[in-house]
This record gives sequence, C-alpha cells and structure tokens, in this order.
Amino acid sequence: MENTHDFHSPATNLIGIGAIKDLPLELMPYKLSKALIVTDKNIIKLGYVETVEKILKSLFISYDIFDGILHPDCTISFVEDALTYFKKRLNILKRSYHIIISIGGGTNHDCAKAVAIIATNGGSIEDYEGYEKMKNPALPVISINTTSGSGSEISNFAIIEDESRKVKMTIGDSKMMPIISVNDPMFMQTMPPDVTASSGIDVLTHSIEGFVSTEASPITDSLALKSIKLVFKYLKRAYENGNDLEAREQMMFASVMAGMVFNNAGLGYVHSMSHQLGALYNEIHGTCNGILLPHVFEFNSPSIPDERIFNINEIIGLEAETKKDAVNNIKHSIQNLCEDIKLPDHLSSIGFNENDLEFMSKNALKDICSITNPRKGTLTDIMDIFKAAI
Amino acid sequence: MENTHDFHSPATNLIGIGAIKDLPLELMPYKLSKALIVTDKNIIKLGYVETVEKILKSLFISYDIFDGILHPDCTISFVEDALTYFKKRLNILKRSYHIIISIGGGTNHDCAKAVAIIATNGGSIEDYEGYEKMKNPALPVISINTTSGSGSEISNFAIIEDESRKVKMTIGDSKMMPIISVNDPMFMQTMPPDVTASSGIDVLTHSIEGFVSTEASPITDSLALKSIKLVFKYLKRAYENGNDLEAREQMMFASVMAGMVFNNAGLGYVHSMSHQLGALYNEIHGTCNGILLPHVFEFNSPSIPDERIFNINEIIGLEAETKKDAVNNIKHSIQNLCEDIKLPDHLSSIGFNENDLEFMSKNALKDICSITNPRKGTLTDIMDIFKAAI
Ligand SMILES: [Fe+2]
Ligand SMILES: [Fe+2]
Repeated sequence: MENTHDFHSPATNLIGIGAIKDLPLELMPYKLSKALIVTDKNIIKLGYVETVEKILKSLFISYDIFDGILHPDCTISFVEDALTYFKKRLNILKRSYHIIISIGGGTNHDCAKAVAIIATNGGSIEDYEGYEKMKNPALPVISINTTSGSGSEISNFAIIEDESRKVKMTIGDSKMMPIISVNDPMFMQTMPPDVTASSGIDVLTHSIEGFVSTEASPITDSLALKSIKLVFKYLKRAYENGNDLEAREQMMFASVMAGMVFNNAGLGYVHSMSHQLGALYNEIHGTCNGILLPHVFEFNSPSIPDERIFNINEIIGLEAETKKDAVNNIKHSIQNLCEDIKLPDHLSSIGFNENDLEFMSKNALKDICSITNPRKGTLTDIMDIFKAAI
Repeated sequence: MENTHDFHSPATNLIGIGAIKDLPLELMPYKLSKALIVTDKNIIKLGYVETVEKILKSLFISYDIFDGILHPDCTISFVEDALTYFKKRLNILKRSYHIIISIGGGTNHDCAKAVAIIATNGGSIEDYEGYEKMKNPALPVISINTTSGSGSEISNFAIIEDESRKVKMTIGDSKMMPIISVNDPMFMQTMPPDVTASSGIDVLTHSIEGFVSTEASPITDSLALKSIKLVFKYLKRAYENGNDLEAREQMMFASVMAGMVFNNAGLGYVHSMSHQLGALYNEIHGTCNGILLPHVFEFNSPSIPDERIFNINEIIGLEAETKKDAVNNIKHSIQNLCEDIKLPDHLSSIGFNENDLEFMSKNALKDICSITNPRKGTLTDIMDIFKAAI
C-alpha cells in the first residue's frame, strides 16, 4: 500500500515587500562569477533588470542579458534564440555561466529553464517533453517574478510551445527546479489590469485543480484552500487598483501557494484543454482557464468527494444544503469573479473554431495535466466540455 | 514598509508510505561516491540503516557509519566525537565525503548538520550559535526521519546542548538546510508510545507557536491550522496503536507541515523555556512543551488577534462566544490531550527545582525563539509562567 506525496520547491523563496533586498545575502555563499539574465525588453524598460544588475555588480558577478522573448508564450524559437546567444557568448568568453537569472513572468522563467536544461544535458528541448527525461541537474536558475500567476518561478515545470505541431509541450523534472525564487510585490505594481485579471484566474485554477487532483495531500490541501480564499478576497481589488499594495501582496501569497499546490499535486483538464487554446489561438493562458474552469469543475464533480466540494464552497463564504447546490455555487462564483474583472466567459469570444474541436480534444487527453484529473474523460467528454463553454 | 516572509525548505521532500523507494532516483544525478551516515545503535538495530545501505550499494556509493549518538539530546560531545571520526576517516581515505546522511530523529539530524557546518566552515560548533553565522554552504545533508516530531529534517535549525554552560544552543542558517528529507511512515512504526506522545506534542507546539508568531505569513498560517487539526484528530490514535498506519501517516503530515511552519515563522516562549528544562533536567523536549504550552498560550493571548484565537478554537472543533472562552477551550484541549497520552501536566513531575527559576528564566529570554513570541515578557513574566506550571 504505497502512497507517496513528494514535495518539491525551491530551497529558498524570497517573499514579500522588499524581498529583493535579501538576494545579495543569498547569492554570496555561491561565489558566482558569471550569470546569464533571461528577460524581455518590457521588463528592462520597467527598470527591474537594472535593480538586479546593481545587485550583481555589487557582488562582482559579471552578466549578459538575453532579452529576446517577444510575446507571452514561450515558443521553441525563443529557446533556440536564447541558446544561440548563450553559445555565442560562451565562445567569446571562453568560460561558462554559473547561473541563469530569469526576470519576468512565467514565459521568461520557462525559457530560462529550457536553456538551463540544454546547457547541461545537450540535445534540443523537444527531447525533454514529458516527465523526468533529464539525466543531469540543469544549470542553476534563479527566478525573479513580476506577475502573480504562473507559479513557474517555484515549479519544476516548463510549458514550451511547439509552433510546428500546434501543441504546448509540458516538461516536468525536479532537476530544473529554480534554486531561489523571488516574489516581491514591488516588482508587480506595474502589472496592467488585464494581466492581473488573467494571471489571478490562473492562480485560482491551480488551487482548485490541485485541491481536487488525484495526487492531493494534506500539505497541498491546506495551501490550496487558503489560496482560493485569498483570490476571492483580493483579486478584484488588485484588478481595480494596481497600487493597492495589500491586495497585490495577498495575491502574491495566493500565487506562491497555488504554485506549491500544482507543482506537487498536479493539475487537471482545465490546463490540458487550456494549453490547446493557447497553442492554436495564442489566447492568454489564464483567460482560457477562466472560461473552462466552471465547466470542467461541473464535469469532475461526481468524482470529487462531497467533503471537498463543501470545503471549497465554505472557504468562498457560501452556504449549501446539497452537493449539487455547492457545485452550482462554486461554478457561479467563478463566473461572477471573471465577469467582475472583465474576462470573457465564452470560447466564442476568443475565436474558437468548431473545426478544431477534435484535434484539440485529442491533444488535451494526451497532455500530462490530464493524468491527475479526478474523473477520467473520453474524447467525447472533452469535446462536450469544450462545447458547453462555447 | 518592508514586510518579508522568506520561505526555506529542502528542495526535495520524499513523503509518504514507501517514499524511501524514491531515494535512489533522487541521488543518481548527484553522482556521489562517498557518504557519511550519522545515526545511533538503536536505529541500526531496527534495520533502517540497512535499508539505506542497500540503496547506497546499488548506486556504488561507499559509506562510513558514525553511530555514537547515545541519548536523545544532541550534545557538543556527540558533535565532537562525530567530527573526530569524520577527520580520522578522511585521513585514512585521502578523500572527502560528498554528503552526510542522517537517519533517526531530531537529535541525529542536528548532529549531522553540526558536522556538516564544521566540515566546510571549520572552527568549533559554539562559533555558530545564533543566526546566519556561517560563511560557506554546509556539506550537503540528507535527513531520513524516523519520528514525527522535531521537524529538524526539514529545518535549517540545530539545537546543540552545551553541557558546560547548561544551555541549549540554537544554530539557525539556511546554508545548512538538508537538500533532501525523507518522511516514510514505514520508518516510524517502531516508535514507542512515549516517543509518539512527546514528539506529537512537539508538533502541536510548533504549529501553535508558529501560528501566533510575529513572523507568521499566509503560507505558514494555512499549514499551521491544518497541522493542529491533524494532531487533535490522530495523535491519540497513533499513541494507542503504533501500527495504525493511517494515524502514523497523518501525524507525519502534521509533523512535516509544523516543521515548515516553525522553520519560516519561528517559535516562541514555550520553546525558549522548554530548552532550559531540557538542558538542566535532561527532560524530553516534547514533554516539557506539553506542560508549558497551555500557560504560555494564556500569557500570550492578550497580544494574539481575536481572529487567530477563534481560528484555533474552531479548527479543534470547539465553539466559543468570547475570546476568553476560546482561550480556555484551547488551554483545556491541550491539557486533555496530554492527559490522554499520559504526559505529565506539571513541572513538579519532572524534577523542577525552584532554585533554578531565575537562571532558567534569564536564559529563556536570551533564547532566539523568544524573538518571535507575540507578547514581550519581562524576567518576572517568564518566572511567573514557570511558577504557574509547577
Ligand atoms: Fe496555469
Ligand atoms: Fe520543538
């Protein structure tokens, strides 16, 4: 009767207002001399990269900056561009990077992880699609987060889009877990409202899918419920006023906890299906999740223990006599929240094309997030969920 | 307005029934060739060391075993014995250990961490008393836990007894955080009832002190409440029937969560005062905590926000109209639980001597656990709490 619930996270997570100031002390013992920063031009413009550069200079760590991430989906081509830059610089410098520092949201962290994998394992990134395909530990990554959402900064997953196959590859391996994550709300104040909205719903999806996952444990359960509570309490405030530092701070905690949840409990069909919408229509990940979550939750509900449904219902602050009432409550709460923060609630608003239905549903079933979904669905089930969300 | 809540934990935590079987896969990428096992003769007799030896052999990792930990308090002399063994072996072998593997409870992990500090930082262990005194990362430690209690296997603290000064030194530094922890209930079934009882109350104390600490965060709050709930639900069962694997498993989760709580939120006066009783009377740590916790909780209550008191009250499953009722409920619940598992509820039963009162109270105020206690006490306050518990 084996029953394991391993828990992986970066050993060091700098969290809270001003947390970035702890970074020099954490870096010192590593005695680094050369770093590669992976970021994008917008993050440079916002001045966040400069803050990190100052820290590196103060520790006499030299660095190069790759800023070729051009849109909020990490594609194979970005990874290849970064690797080309990486190798070219290595030839010039005649010595290796000790560390990769990603600054930005999930896209930038995922790109950095992909480069870190190839740097020590060789090959191309497609070789590592799936779970635990790496042989050697990746080059150490430090992930400095500027959004409250993806959880990539504290996860051992990277989502890389393969444009040629029109799928998002999921790469999962604890050997590429960042060694230090930084979540400082000071780096999140400039997040525009639409990003706050979509990444906030991504957080909610991580917590809800993780809470009902087949791999949930008491550790992830406690984090998931708290995270759900915080999203319902603070997301609207953070959306309406980006300078509301309390709301930003609480959403950041929600995001970190949700990251710990999905990294260790896994996800479900919302993510499996959402990945397909992202790959085909380039739609924002959190936005797709918000549309799908109520429908997947309803589909899953017969396989979710009653107690868990009531737990979610209660933590949102609602009352219900029956399981059915509770499921409806939760469904409508998610839809109301999405409406409040101006996210679409139908696939038709994001250019969904019924001709893609079967292709996407087949790929969704193959996505590794499907493994931990609480109810096993057929191809028809997945197609029906998509249809219900049109 | 800085407000940071850094979160440290081992990057990899193998948790659950059969978790030990995941260890080879985790060790492989490190390409280790030589390990030092730190343990005691009882753990060897129970066969747990043999299980680990088999794993090391299968990976062609050679190892030595230091089994000189003689009683459940890690004293400076044990650390020195281990270091002498360590250095002697190094001279013979002409090459260094790559890793230290501790197998046992908190005492063994603390001893292993102390050796790991000196191995890379030199000096003697007294040099590192306090917080963040190390310059270099410690030799990597893997901690394989055989009790549900201390949380040392997932903490960056070590408690070492200085017999000459009659105090327990606390050493805290994230540079000695174990890199892998293992919590497999299969290694905990042989824990005798009295150890189950005292280490279970230690878990409860970690969660309650962490929940009301000045450094609590939403992350530690969620873990603390869940852990408190599990202790009240499962400790009595695990005490009454050590083979009740469900109770063992849930107590193990409670212990891991409580470890994450105190490692990141800190502790309070229960631990500061308990350390003194341990140093002077060699009394078991958890037993001392059980006696002190109700009294410290009452002393702290005016400084604990009402909501938090009601949260604890509710998670135990009790109802209260007023804060005062809730405080009383909590106090009595702890005392009843201790009675159920046959732990003493008065200091007089553990050989307490009133002549030591001032000496112990002074040292308790100096203990680093006092920093995060929610209410600042004077020397008289601490003496009064001790007196109330006589
Ligand atoms: Fe997501
Ligand atoms: Fe303790």
